[in-house]
This record gives sequence, C-alpha cells and structure tokens, in this order.
Amino acid sequence: MQRGKFITFEGIDGAGKSTHLAWLASFLRDKGLEVIVTREPGSTALGEQLRQLLLDHRQAMHAETETLLMFAARREHLDKVILPALERGAWVISDRFTDASFAYQGGGRGVPSARLEILEQWVQKGFSPDLTVYFDVPVTISRQRVQSARTADRFELEPDLFFERVRQAYLQRAKQFSERIRVVDGSLSLEEVRTAMVEVVEKFWSAQASSGYRM
Amino acid sequence: MQRGKFITFEGIDGAGKSTHLAWLASFLRDKGLEVIVTREPGSTALGEQLRQLLLDHRQAMHAETETLLMFAARREHLDKVILPALERGAWVISDRFTDASFAYQGGGRGVPSARLEILEQWVQKGFSPDLTVYFDVPVTISRQRVQSARTADRFELEPDLFFERVRQAYLQRAKQFSERIRVVDGSLSLEEVRTAMVEVVEKFWSAQASSGYRM
Repeated sequence: MQRGKFITFEGIDGAGKSTHLAWLASFLRDKGLEVIVTREPGSTALGEQLRQLLLDHRQAMHAETETLLMFAARREHLDKVILPALERGAWVISDRFTDASFAYQGGGRGVPSARLEILEQWVQKGFSPDLTVYFDVPVTISRQRVQSARTADRFELEPDLFFERVRQAYLQRAKQFSERIRVVDGSLSLEEVRTAMVEVVEKFWSAQASSGYRM
Repeated sequence: MQRGKFITFEGIDGAGKSTHLAWLASFLRDKGLEVIVTREPGSTALGEQLRQLLLDHRQAMHAETETLLMFAARREHLDKVILPALERGAWVISDRFTDASFAYQGGGRGVPSARLEILEQWVQKGFSPDLTVYFDVPVTISRQRVQSARTADRFELEPDLFFERVRQAYLQRAKQFSERIRVVDGSLSLEEVRTAMVEVVEKFWSAQASSGYRM
C-alpha cells in the first residue's frame, strides 16, 4: 500500500470551498481511494475545543497566542488524523492548513513569516501538502457571499482591510510555492470554479499516475 | 519607577509551594512593594480555559501539542499579566514558569531540550525570571503529601517514574542556571523550608538593594 496524498484547500470564505471539497472527495472516491475530509482548526476532540476558543469573539488574545494555538491544534491534527490516514494509504483533503497561518496570522495579524516558519518547522518537520488549491476571491465578493449566512465569528468581525491583507499573503504564498499551490479564480460561478478545480486535480492525478502511483 | 522583579517557584507538588508563595508575597508587600501572585498554566481567562484542557485527564494529547499549549498560555500570561505588572514597577511571583516546561514536557514527556529552547526563544525573546526558587522534594514524599488531598489531574495520574524524570530535569536545570535557580530542600518541615526560602529571598533582596534598586 502506497502512502496517500495530502491536498489542502485555502482561501478566504465565499468561494464555495466546502462545496468543492465535497465534490473532490467524491471524485477521488470514484477512483477507488479512501478519502478523509477534515478541517483546521479542529477535527480532533481537542482541536474542536481550541477552535471554539479561537473563533469565540469574546476572546481578545495576542496574535502570537493565536498562532501558537493554531499550531497546537495542527500538531494534534497531524498526530491523530492526517498522518495515520496517509500511512494507511488514504488521501486526506483538509479545509485549510499551514498556508492559512501565513495568511491569517501572518498577513492578517502581522506575525512575521520568518517567525511562522520556525513553528512550521517545529511542528511539521518538513511535512507539507502534496497539492494546495487556493480559491482566490476579491474581499468585496467574499463578504457579499458570506454575509447573513450565519453569526460572524472572531475572524469574520475583522474589517475588510484585514481580509485584504490575508488575500495578499495568500497570493504571495501562491507565487512563492507555485509548484504546490494552484490558484483558482473563486469570483466565477460555482460551476466555473468547479471546472477550474477539476482541471487542477485531474492534472495532479495524471502526474501521480505517470510517476507510478497506484492504489 | 523602576521595573519590577520576576520571581518563580518551581518543583513537583508536596513541598508546600503555595503556602510559601503566600508568605513571600506578604514579605515583599511589607517592604512596600506591589506584588502580583500568579500561576501557570492559567492566570488569564484564556489561560484558565487552556489549563482545564491540559489537566483534564480525558484528554490524551501528543506531548508536543501539550508543549505548544503551555507556551500559548505563557504567551498570553506574559502579555496580559506579567509584563504589564513589571512595567508599572510591581513584583510578580509565579507558581511555575518555563522551567516547568523543561521539567514536565522535557524530562517527563521526553520533548528534547533543544526543541523547548526554540519555543522559549519564540515566546520570551530572551526574557526570563530574575530569581527562581526550586523546592526539591523526593517523589515518594511528594506523593505521600499530595495523596488524598484532591482528585488527581492528568499529570498527577502519571507513575512515580514520570515524576522522577521531572525531578531530575529540575535538578539539571538548577545546575545549568545556578545563578538564577536556588534550590531549597522541600523534604524538611514547612517551618524549615520557609526559613531556607527566606534566606534565599533576603539574599536576593539585598543584592537588588546594593545594586541600587529602589521603589
């Protein structure tokens, strides 16, 4: 049994990430793969409790505390969910991962990239996603789509400028890791976004197959 | 107004740390100082919630997750409690601080010191206590004194061997930082331990005074 692949979805809300994520899971399951769908922060008992603390808007915490909590939840996520699944050959798709720390805590809150890289190395020891699909969507569109969908959490209460910085940080990461991170235009219709995503994923799948990946 | 001093108390339970801590606070208040008594993990709204997660024995978490949560609580503790108090000239006494991470997560759980030092530097940027009183007590005595005092938390449920490693790590730290960390024999009677602690603190106080410290 070969090791599974780790795919992450990134981006600010409003690009239909979770819809596309469910679609991708079916696509891969149709190929006969075991697929685990997960998310950050969260996905373990402890991680979900930390998610509550992180999203609770009554919690005013230091940006570095927020960063450490994100990486604590990630350490647990890797240990309990991601790594065991990959080891047994399952593919794992996560709604957000470390690129989100560079975007939200880095771009959004101003924690320097060099400091985030220290924690990334501490927690991941070189591990990173095999493929990242970044759904790029202008902040105004994101806000329109998200508004009134639910009660805003601590992040969603931030001003547009915060999300502008998050988006810029994502775009910067996509440029820096252009081999791994594929940008999909999230401002298009759901249908068009899905078509673009399918193309990215089928290309990735073909590359795996041609490099000898088999189930 | 001069910056206050930061004193930490360390050790496994059963040496009467909290009794001595209350005594030291009075001793320093009698000198006219503002004194803040605090503890780790905890002492902020978020920190106390993290303390619950950390001590809850139903939570089986990875040693590195535990370490990151301890440092997240510490980052918040520094930001909200310790640093503002020191800045305004108050003295701060904390029941445990970073030496405890080296003892419990390092010695106890086996996280390498070099890895702990990375987080220490990340969070504290060179900041460390001015004085640490380490109450050394053999594990058998500690357990006798603590037993039946309350329901055991996730740490207290660990076997004696765990606490033996914690104690050895504390003794190793005390040797490594012999200027800062003063060892008090915690196996003696409460009265004798207090006498030893008073001696340590008065010596520290005189050193401050002779180096020009004034309120």
